[in-house]
Amino acid sequence: MSQKRDIAVLVFEGFETLDVMGPIELFGMHPDAFAIHFVASTPGNVASVHRLQVVATEGFESERHFDLVLVPGGIGTRQAIKDEVLLDWIRNRAADAEILTSVCTGSALLAMAGVLDGRRATTNKMAFSWVTEQGPKVNWIARARWVEDGDVFTSSGVSAGMDMTLAVIARLLGQKAAEDAALWAEYTWHRDADHDPFAETWGLTG
Amino acid sequence: MSQKRDIAVLVFEGFETLDVMGPIELFGMHPDAFAIHFVASTPGNVASVHRLQVVATEGFESERHFDLVLVPGGIGTRQAIKDEVLLDWIRNRAADAEILTSVCTGSALLAMAGVLDGRRATTNKMAFSWVTEQGPKVNWIARARWVEDGDVFTSSGVSAGMDMTLAVIARLLGQKAAEDAALWAEYTWHRDADHDPFAETWGLTG
Repeated sequence: MSQKRDIAVLVFEGFETLDVMGPIELFGMHPDAFAIHFVASTPGNVASVHRLQVVATEGFESERHFDLVLVPGGIGTRQAIKDEVLLDWIRNRAADAEILTSVCTGSALLAMAGVLDGRRATTNKMAFSWVTEQGPKVNWIARARWVEDGDVFTSSGVSAGMDMTLAVIARLLGQKAAEDAALWAEYTWHRDADHDPFAETWGLTG
Repeated sequence: MSQKRDIAVLVFEGFETLDVMGPIELFGMHPDAFAIHFVASTPGNVASVHRLQVVATEGFESERHFDLVLVPGGIGTRQAIKDEVLLDWIRNRAADAEILTSVCTGSALLAMAGVLDGRRATTNKMAFSWVTEQGPKVNWIARARWVEDGDVFTSSGVSAGMDMTLAVIARLLGQKAAEDAALWAEYTWHRDADHDPFAETWGLTG
C-alpha cells in the first residue's frame, strides 16, 4: 500500500477511555498503514469520563479526508446525541469514509445521525435499551461481540472495540496483520463476532 | 472506605498507550475508591508512542501523596531508563506507596530504580531479554500473565496490564469489585496469573 489510511477518532467530553484507546493501540501497531487523528468540535483538550485529558489536533472544520472514522461511547453520549453539529459531522464523514466504526454506546450517535438505518448493528449490553431507543430503524443485534454490515462495524461494550478493531485490520490488511497486532499487544483476540458472553448476563437474547 | 486512594500514572514521551489506558479504564470503574492523576517530569502534554497527546496534571515536584503508582512501558522506556530524575521519582514514590505496579516494559524502569531487587517480577515477552538485562538482581518470571510479590505487581505485555489491574482491585476492594469492573467493561478477565499464552510464542519457559 502506497499511502496510509487516515483515521478520525472522535472525542467529546465524557468519552469512555478504553473505547478510544483499545482501538488506537491495535491500529497503532501498524504505523505504516494507519495515521491516527483526534478530532473534536474544535482543536484542544477533551476530557474522558475518567478525567483523562487528551489533545484533539483537528476540529470539525478540518479539510482532511478520513478513510476510517471511530466513534466511541461513554456517558458523554447522553449529551452528544443532542448535538446537531456533531451528528452532522458523523453523517458527512460516514458518507465519505471507507470504513465507519463505533464502540459501545457510540452506536447511539451513529443511530441518531441516521447512518445505521436499515443496517445490522450492536452496542453495549448494559445500556442496550437506551441505545436501541435512539435507532428505531436499526436492526439491533443483542448477542454479538461486534457486527459487520458492509463498511460499518459496530461493537459491543468497551473492550469489545479491540476485537472489532482486529476484524477491521484483518479486512483491510489481511488476517496476519490482525494476528500480529494482537500478538504484539499480548491480547487474546475474541475472534468469533457472534460469541457474546455478556448478552446473557443482562438478559438479552437474539 | 472513607477516602479515595490516589493513583499516580507516570507518563513519558513514547509510553505505550494501552499500558496506561487499560488500567485507567478498570480503576476508573470505581470512582468512589480511586482518583487518577497523570504525572510527568513537569505538568503539560506528553505524547504516547502512537502520537496521542495526554495532559499530565502533576509534575515530579508534586507534594501529593500517592497510594498507588503505575509505571507503563513502551518504546520510550529506552530513553527513560537513563533518566536519573525519573528513576529517583520511582524510587521515592515506591517507598511511600501502598501498591506499586508496572505494565509491560515498565518493569525495566522499576528494575533500574532498584525497587525490584530480590523480588519476583515479569514483563513483556517480546522484549524479555532487554528488560531482564536491566535487572540482574531480579527474579524474572518468564511464564506469567502478571506477578504479585507483596505490594509490587508487575504485568506482562500491554493487555496484561488489565488482568493485573483487576487483581489489584480484588486485593484492595474485594473480588466482587474486580468482577464488576470487568463486567462493566465487557472484559473477559484472564484470572490465572500463571497462565501466559505468549511466553511460549517467544520461546520462553520457566
